[in-house]
Amino acid sequence: MFREKIKVFDCTIRDGGLINNHDFDERFVREVYKALSGAGVDYMEIGYKNSKRLFSPKDFGKWKFCEDSDIEKVITGIKSKTKISVMVDVDRVDIEDIKPKKESPVDMIRVASYVKDIDKAIFLVNHFADKGYETTVNIMAISRALDNELTEALGQLEKECKAQVIYIVDSFGALYQETTEFLIKKFKSILKTKEIGMHAHNNQQLAFANTIEAIIHNANFVDGTVYGLGRAAGNCPLELLIGFLKNPKFDIRPILDLISKEFIPLREKIEWGYIVPYAITGMLDEHPKSAIALRDSDKKENYREFYESLLGEDID
Amino acid sequence: MFREKIKVFDCTIRDGGLINNHDFDERFVREVYKALSGAGVDYMEIGYKNSKRLFSPKDFGKWKFCEDSDIEKVITGIKSKTKISVMVDVDRVDIEDIKPKKESPVDMIRVASYVKDIDKAIFLVNHFADKGYETTVNIMAISRALDNELTEALGQLEKECKAQVIYIVDSFGALYQETTEFLIKKFKSILKTKEIGMHAHNNQQLAFANTIEAIIHNANFVDGTVYGLGRAAGNCPLELLIGFLKNPKFDIRPILDLISKEFIPLREKIEWGYIVPYAITGMLDEHPKSAIALRDSDKKENYREFYESLLGEDID
Repeated sequence: MFREKIKVFDCTIRDGGLINNHDFDERFVREVYKALSGAGVDYMEIGYKNSKRLFSPKDFGKWKFCEDSDIEKVITGIKSKTKISVMVDVDRVDIEDIKPKKESPVDMIRVASYVKDIDKAIFLVNHFADKGYETTVNIMAISRALDNELTEALGQLEKECKAQVIYIVDSFGALYQETTEFLIKKFKSILKTKEIGMHAHNNQQLAFANTIEAIIHNANFVDGTVYGLGRAAGNCPLELLIGFLKNPKFDIRPILDLISKEFIPLREKIEWGYIVPYAITGMLDEHPKSAIALRDSDKKENYREFYESLLGEDID
Repeated sequence: MFREKIKVFDCTIRDGGLINNHDFDERFVREVYKALSGAGVDYMEIGYKNSKRLFSPKDFGKWKFCEDSDIEKVITGIKSKTKISVMVDVDRVDIEDIKPKKESPVDMIRVASYVKDIDKAIFLVNHFADKGYETTVNIMAISRALDNELTEALGQLEKECKAQVIYIVDSFGALYQETTEFLIKKFKSILKTKEIGMHAHNNQQLAFANTIEAIIHNANFVDGTVYGLGRAAGNCPLELLIGFLKNPKFDIRPILDLISKEFIPLREKIEWGYIVPYAITGMLDEHPKSAIALRDSDKKENYREFYESLLGEDID
């Protein structure tokens, strides 16, 4: 009953790092890696490769930079088939920081890009691919992409780009299943030689559902995070995804243990998940930044006023 | 873009009452009714009509019995088009307690039934219909129904039953979209003269998604509860449903206010929502009672042991 091609991709530390400036300690990251390895998860994304010229290591934890030596520390000694991924944002990476694959513990580099930056993303991906890495392009804010521009970008990716996987990223948690279906079918129709990936956000409690929808329509790379950890509403809960997939290589139990021991206590310290202001930005197809600001204010539970403030923005 | 036939059915007080023995105070229920009326919600289910011979009013709040006089107290003086519903369980009602519709504030009676009790449900529904009420049959634990028995039950409902609506009730929160689609299509194929309803539980964060799936395949009665309140993992969040539907008669703002003022404080006192043991019972297609018991114990966060205990049940 299972489709062997489906790869489960965990981005707990990478997406979760957006809440705490990428400042998870080594012990915690090692526990996550150990559990993912035991669960049979295919990939673990550990953070970003950002330029230290642009961001100061004083202001951020180490997973904003993902030095190979820091990665080695958290994975050494753990028996694992889980591959390591890092993410790169267009315009924020120094490509000379990336060593050839042979000299690095990193297996995959994912390039996050808006449709408008697709040429830059293709340049980066091809550079990393030539250095020996598996690569993907993750098209962010897909719910805001104009159809003609998306068509052109997908055409370029198919022709010019060495990435194995092209991802739909529902950055705002705005997609319903019908649009997910539409997008996956569109991607499949243009990207004949590539796999499709799905990275969903949970603003409207649809991250898992949209991921299932993507699987139904033949996406084979699916992202999740442990207990849904991730900025704002968070992501598709990995434990639900593992519970759904039928491939006997997966084992949910190490993930259950990890949630009990590490994520329930963590949730007391940092906030993510289904919170109404994030649902509102999802419904309105907005970036969650206004809702994140609200949650840091003394009006954090004033949902109606927040909703009306978004409706009231001048637009012409 | 909207389908006028879609009716939004709130069961906050009824399903939420399963957490607190139906003991919401009048002020709270009145606030809910006021907000639902302002939001344009079509129906509000306020509780159960249970026999006082079987359940003592000393042990339960008033919404386990729903005396007409108690209903009158919470709705009088509020301008509203929202209809009032009560639920009846097979074998737990005294039918002589139900007055003719003309003498009651109740508009609809929903009969909850397992497939095996369908003859009893039909008897009850036809009795209530003859008294002038709108009626539904809600088929519980649908994820456990055997296909041949379900086919027979649906055939009987189509031929013998006066209910306007037949509901799929995913009691265990076990359905994924593909099975929801299968069931809705099956119901539609047999129930030619009736509307289909969807009542989802949120164990796997799929209550909203399965409700959308039901709408896509032409279910026209959809249940939600404010902030997802309901036993265990709770239900489809009404605010998400209202945000999704395009009918201009709906207004989300009174619901947002209600959540801020009443449901955020309530959530501090009673527990519901996405909690891993409920996800586990959903994945395994089990009644949540074992997870509810776990949450009342000192092992409430011991997910792995709980999971293994369910797998380890002897079966032959």
